[in-house]
Amino acid sequence: MKKFINQVDDILVESLQGFAKAHADIVKLHLSPNFITRQHKAHNKVALISGGGSGHEPLHSGFVGKGMLDAACPGYVFTSPSPDQMLAAAEAVECGKGVLFIVKNYAGDVMNFEMAAEMLSVPNATVLTNDDVAVLNSSYTTGRRGVAGTVIVEKTLGSLAETGADLAQCVAFGEKVNQRCGSMGVALTSCTVPAAGKPTFDIADHEIEMGVGIHGEPGRKREKLRPANDIVEDMINAILHDFESRNISPSQGVILLVNGFAATPLMELYLLYHAASDQLKQHGINIQRSLVGNYTTALDMAGASITLCASDAEILQHWDSPVHTAGLRWGI
Amino acid sequence: MKKFINQVDDILVESLQGFAKAHADIVKLHLSPNFITRQHKAHNKVALISGGGSGHEPLHSGFVGKGMLDAACPGYVFTSPSPDQMLAAAEAVECGKGVLFIVKNYAGDVMNFEMAAEMLSVPNATVLTNDDVAVLNSSYTTGRRGVAGTVIVEKTLGSLAETGADLAQCVAFGEKVNQRCGSMGVALTSCTVPAAGKPTFDIADHEIEMGVGIHGEPGRKREKLRPANDIVEDMINAILHDFESRNISPSQGVILLVNGFAATPLMELYLLYHAASDQLKQHGINIQRSLVGNYTTALDMAGASITLCASDAEILQHWDSPVHTAGLRWGI
Repeated sequence: MKKFINQVDDILVESLQGFAKAHADIVKLHLSPNFITRQHKAHNKVALISGGGSGHEPLHSGFVGKGMLDAACPGYVFTSPSPDQMLAAAEAVECGKGVLFIVKNYAGDVMNFEMAAEMLSVPNATVLTNDDVAVLNSSYTTGRRGVAGTVIVEKTLGSLAETGADLAQCVAFGEKVNQRCGSMGVALTSCTVPAAGKPTFDIADHEIEMGVGIHGEPGRKREKLRPANDIVEDMINAILHDFESRNISPSQGVILLVNGFAATPLMELYLLYHAASDQLKQHGINIQRSLVGNYTTALDMAGASITLCASDAEILQHWDSPVHTAGLRWGI
Repeated sequence: MKKFINQVDDILVESLQGFAKAHADIVKLHLSPNFITRQHKAHNKVALISGGGSGHEPLHSGFVGKGMLDAACPGYVFTSPSPDQMLAAAEAVECGKGVLFIVKNYAGDVMNFEMAAEMLSVPNATVLTNDDVAVLNSSYTTGRRGVAGTVIVEKTLGSLAETGADLAQCVAFGEKVNQRCGSMGVALTSCTVPAAGKPTFDIADHEIEMGVGIHGEPGRKREKLRPANDIVEDMINAILHDFESRNISPSQGVILLVNGFAATPLMELYLLYHAASDQLKQHGINIQRSLVGNYTTALDMAGASITLCASDAEILQHWDSPVHTAGLRWGI
């Protein structure tokens, strides 16, 4: 295993400490239990809290800040955070309008956020993200996995919450955005979990894992490496087929997110974007907004995912609004 | 070779097309010869143009936009752009105050930018970046290599140019910032140039290349993989020793850039940042500003570099000013 680390047990805290120091104008780190809050507490809004296993950075800590999350609870690598983290985070950021948890659909995360929700004394609710169209049920999941569409949910819901919308409005909008997202990933290499010290799965030099999950979970099938255009065509078709099966129409256009899993260079991500935009054009679908980069990663995996969000005026308005986080920043 | 590509010969143009479409609000792509300009041409300022071989994205195309570059000339992968690209770019963006080329110190780039400069009919000048403290002379270089410090030069010089400063003022400031930058890189893996189809160098599972260049050029020495803190200590010491030998004082603090070469996850980059900030504290050096991420990459190499810029009030002012590019954005 070749990583920049000191001791495996110290990776998370050392990385969080570096993150908090590098972005001290935006975030504040709390330890034991571990959570990240905004440096300046917000007022009179629904407090948005997300979290999940680490190794997907900038998700979620990188999205704490004005216009997105109020707090994030990082678990150990690929391990759910515990309810005490969520409770402490909720206590720190709640500001009179209740707490909304944004949870990616993985068994451990769902269970622990549910426990926290039950123990919480303030009004609270949960929006579950499950945008991965690749498989139904998976290694860590009952039902679809929550992947990079979560970034779009956190950005747009973050914007709505900033307007002072109440908990019910936030839940309804978050669920709407999640339902209008579809994602499909592909891996060129495995990731290596530090505590395991070896690749999560074996994959030959000529193979790709189509529909891979962000923890290296199996996807739909192992395929031969093909030209990027062919791979992207299959990914876009998988998402559009899913949209059709759920009566989601991209007729008002889409937000197109080409997301790297960490080890794939920007040059290749833009090539994938080019292929995706050609595909969408052939389907008569307009790209309303774009995002290209590493936003929901899988440790050191080479690979990428494509997310389409069937947008409408409300979603675009909340996508465009100002945001100031370590991972996404515009308008401020 | 495992990459998202169609044909090796088409990588650059397809990637540029994706880049330009994804950021159509910021940039405009010109083909044959290839260059990127701002979508909205600036007026009454020195036109800043950079360029170099591709494979270092977001450098330089990702830094075209308000507050940074007026144009970028991308060559093929790890290959200098040609003078016709620079001349066409200069013609497109010159707006009355002359042209300033920002050139990383590599033999091919220096030669081609010099040819363009000689052929150009408008007033022009060049700022050469050579911030890499690892080696004097290298595979592609006479003298020190230009690496991630170039981002700091482009950001701060971009800001100064935006104020209407004249060509001489821009040259003087650009040279000052470059002189106050020092960088040191380390590779965990090689990169793979698409046209070569195989790794540029062999490196064992327990080895690192200390002082590696951003094209996979040899560094100072091949070492054993060690704890991140030890690696960072050597990198910081190398930079501070270089500063001392050149009478550069970081007594007013530094801008600390922890730059990923592409395949190293953000989690590890923040861990490196944590180690670097501890080292600097031991040396009594204040971190004034921070940047962590993939800004000057080396195709698909795993590794990272640390850049220190011995800042002063003028440099910080130009670092903080608004910028709106694909790769860096704040204040707008």
